[in-house]
Amino acid sequence: MDTLATVYRQSLALLTDLYQLTMAYGYWRNGLGNREAIFHLFFRRNPFRGGYAIAAGLEQAIDFVRGFRYADDDLTYLSGLEGADGAPLFAPAFIEHLARLELEVDIDAVPEGTAVFPHEPMLRVRGPLVQAQLLETPLLNIINFQTLIATKAARVCSAADGDPVLEFGLRRAQGIDGSLGASRAAYIGGVAATSNVLAGKLFGIPVKGTHAHSWVMVHDTELEAFAAYAEAMPNNCVFLVDTYDTLDGVRHAVEVGHRLRAAGHELLGIRLDSGDLAWLSQRAREILDAGGFPDAAIVASNDLDEHLIESLKHQGATIGVWGVGTKLVTAYDQAALGGVYKLAAIRDDAGAWEYKIKLSEQAIKVSTPGMLNIRRFEEPHGFVGDVIFDELAGLPQPCIIVDPADATRRKAITPSTPSTELLTAIVRKGNVVYTRPSLEAIRQRVQAQLSHLHAGIKRFQNPHSYPVGLEAGLFELKQHLVLEARGFITHDDKPGGAA
Amino acid sequence: MDTLATVYRQSLALLTDLYQLTMAYGYWRNGLGNREAIFHLFFRRNPFRGGYAIAAGLEQAIDFVRGFRYADDDLTYLSGLEGADGAPLFAPAFIEHLARLELEVDIDAVPEGTAVFPHEPMLRVRGPLVQAQLLETPLLNIINFQTLIATKAARVCSAADGDPVLEFGLRRAQGIDGSLGASRAAYIGGVAATSNVLAGKLFGIPVKGTHAHSWVMVHDTELEAFAAYAEAMPNNCVFLVDTYDTLDGVRHAVEVGHRLRAAGHELLGIRLDSGDLAWLSQRAREILDAGGFPDAAIVASNDLDEHLIESLKHQGATIGVWGVGTKLVTAYDQAALGGVYKLAAIRDDAGAWEYKIKLSEQAIKVSTPGMLNIRRFEEPHGFVGDVIFDELAGLPQPCIIVDPADATRRKAITPSTPSTELLTAIVRKGNVVYTRPSLEAIRQRVQAQLSHLHAGIKRFQNPHSYPVGLEAGLFELKQHLVLEARGFITHDDKPGGAA
Repeated sequence: MDTLATVYRQSLALLTDLYQLTMAYGYWRNGLGNREAIFHLFFRRNPFRGGYAIAAGLEQAIDFVRGFRYADDDLTYLSGLEGADGAPLFAPAFIEHLARLELEVDIDAVPEGTAVFPHEPMLRVRGPLVQAQLLETPLLNIINFQTLIATKAARVCSAADGDPVLEFGLRRAQGIDGSLGASRAAYIGGVAATSNVLAGKLFGIPVKGTHAHSWVMVHDTELEAFAAYAEAMPNNCVFLVDTYDTLDGVRHAVEVGHRLRAAGHELLGIRLDSGDLAWLSQRAREILDAGGFPDAAIVASNDLDEHLIESLKHQGATIGVWGVGTKLVTAYDQAALGGVYKLAAIRDDAGAWEYKIKLSEQAIKVSTPGMLNIRRFEEPHGFVGDVIFDELAGLPQPCIIVDPADATRRKAITPSTPSTELLTAIVRKGNVVYTRPSLEAIRQRVQAQLSHLHAGIKRFQNPHSYPVGLEAGLFELKQHLVLEARGFITHDDKPGGAA
Repeated sequence: MDTLATVYRQSLALLTDLYQLTMAYGYWRNGLGNREAIFHLFFRRNPFRGGYAIAAGLEQAIDFVRGFRYADDDLTYLSGLEGADGAPLFAPAFIEHLARLELEVDIDAVPEGTAVFPHEPMLRVRGPLVQAQLLETPLLNIINFQTLIATKAARVCSAADGDPVLEFGLRRAQGIDGSLGASRAAYIGGVAATSNVLAGKLFGIPVKGTHAHSWVMVHDTELEAFAAYAEAMPNNCVFLVDTYDTLDGVRHAVEVGHRLRAAGHELLGIRLDSGDLAWLSQRAREILDAGGFPDAAIVASNDLDEHLIESLKHQGATIGVWGVGTKLVTAYDQAALGGVYKLAAIRDDAGAWEYKIKLSEQAIKVSTPGMLNIRRFEEPHGFVGDVIFDELAGLPQPCIIVDPADATRRKAITPSTPSTELLTAIVRKGNVVYTRPSLEAIRQRVQAQLSHLHAGIKRFQNPHSYPVGLEAGLFELKQHLVLEARGFITHDDKPGGAA
């Protein structure tokens, strides 16, 4: 299903930064628009101070590319934009050019659900400069957010350690699509269900929910409220017990549980939404067990995240199902992934590839040139390391990888180690050539990938760094280009260092 | 314009938590569905540890209510949901009921752009219990996010102290609608323009943008790159100067600025996107001034927020335009507003209003009963205080307000003080009765409101609390209901306090 086309009526071709269009205009005017270029989308630091990220968003990115065309009202809008002097920003011939524009780019990407690491090209766009540039902002918007939430969900589920996690975040999500996108990414990352009914309908994600405090408040007593709910929906009874007094609530749930059982149904569980969840869950467990409901689950919610879940487990909380909302769907402790999209090569006048870098005072921000791919090496116990290499130069055997952040950290890869290339052909000359996996398959891929990562990489505190390096030849090329570029720059007079 | 209908093809009636539908089913089954109820939407703490929030999102909320109807595929989806025993969750007669459902609620709300404070009802829904319940989640989703970003933008603009702020956040926003909604709310909050072209088209927000690092990298030298841009788009020249060496970049901008001037155009400015912005802006100002461009603006960007802008101003940065992205559109330091929606009254069997509260161990979380409104008192120098009162009981003259968090803090309001009621009729019996102000009018309202708040309320560190209190009679009623409810609760045996 093309989710974007199902959800959005609006043409999304203008979902981009204005500067992409002003640059596109410049390239078009000075004849560089069709020059073939290569861009990579990558991030520089793992989110949440963690050891990995989970790639996500490719499906929406594909939908975006497939649906890309300027609608008449897009073109009318662009025609009306003015520069500082009140004259139109764009010449009519450029607007006509946009009207006829059909994407001809090639896109390669890491499949959704793959564990990815800093500096790895998650997505590579090769094609006419104007087109590759126009795609930058929407691709970043989609991939940054989906990857952020899939990663957060993987962490939350890893803390839950096999217990089901329910995503309850709609009311605090960043807008409508913020909620739908978060539900999808959270499901990829491992959550079992969502409260968001529209996400359930659109993506086929299981939906869960029973009742709120208001249900209890509407009735004269909590016991009446539970009994009325059980009467109406006996096959979906998880009672929220903390409207007045939590443990009284558990006792009322047990009482109604007996009536349910007499009618041929079963109490599924209770939900705690406030108070000391560790202590309350233990008392609630005792009451449920003593009442004859050892299988009734204790669901907990209340601003949970991976750290609180880990802590509650250490405290011996008897919680079996975790409801996670705000902290998951907004990735509260780091609300954005800092993905970037950088030019890495462009054809010169003679048609030869010219490598490109962007300098920075911070080594981590210097981009890597080439037409990059990732090869991941795997031994029976799991992944052992990734090499980022330049397809234009090829990958030598045996190969040595160099840590991009510390050139003295190097690792030789045994040539016989089995390996896979991570970039997959997605779009060729503007046409989608990729058979999209189901959401279930993506979700399973996440679990398979995580099982191949050493526990140290997955821990929350000071995780071990998974080895990712530049192939040594690519590293040398990059160093050379940096030194060359710096050689042309006069030293600055800023006190204490170069500006 | 109905933005939701313009943007979304999809029916949004299922944009809700499943528990709203399961509760609706329960109320429908047991005959309570049409019982008249009153709910309020409010938050409990100002975002960003600040002194105020800016109400936003009402327009989208109205769009949602106006477009609310279940589509055939929504109903098919709901019919297929199953309970724990595999039997349908919803009886067919309920699905038919939903198919016929037309909203008959009354909605009153604080107009967009109004300064609001903790515990104040930003929105009040009165109507059939089922309907008021079904609206909870989407209203929270919309109002929480828009209010969060409008407030963040107001803070950022207040730090910029009259300098234009540009919103550049699309690439890091939480999804497509996350970006569109953020652009709208940021404009309400005071930003001058967005980079998001689609937001410009949909909402009529000015759009801004010139070129990225990639433009410079594509050309052989920075000077050639600036010259080529000036050639293509002479009426939109703000050169990004930090691709290689920032101050060399400024010198190149000056050189091209002279060519521009010779051709009858003017260099608008330069942009700094890395490095020490305070120091670089001062050096850049010197170079621009000495080069004959005292009016060329220095635009700065790079993970800015209100705190960094304030600090740069204190350091004497000569920055005239602020580009703010990630930290604004995701409200990075607090990615969600904790707005809630609570039942406050419901008709009893005899048709009389019955007040409702939700208890909590934390006083701040105990809800306020009644049919609430806010009256704001204003003296010539500005707003002096707000009283939350119950329309069912009326507002006595003179009135005393009681701090809901500390009953010993009280304030008498002089009866002669001019005042306004903040809740405005928006929807009556399901029909919109409100003439929506333009985005410009909302934006102006924000500035007018902020000018009526004392500076201490607007400062970032330990802001002064704006006086908001419950009308003394309402406070007494709430106390009484809490004591009454607690009187029916047996004490718990949790060590160290009640559970």
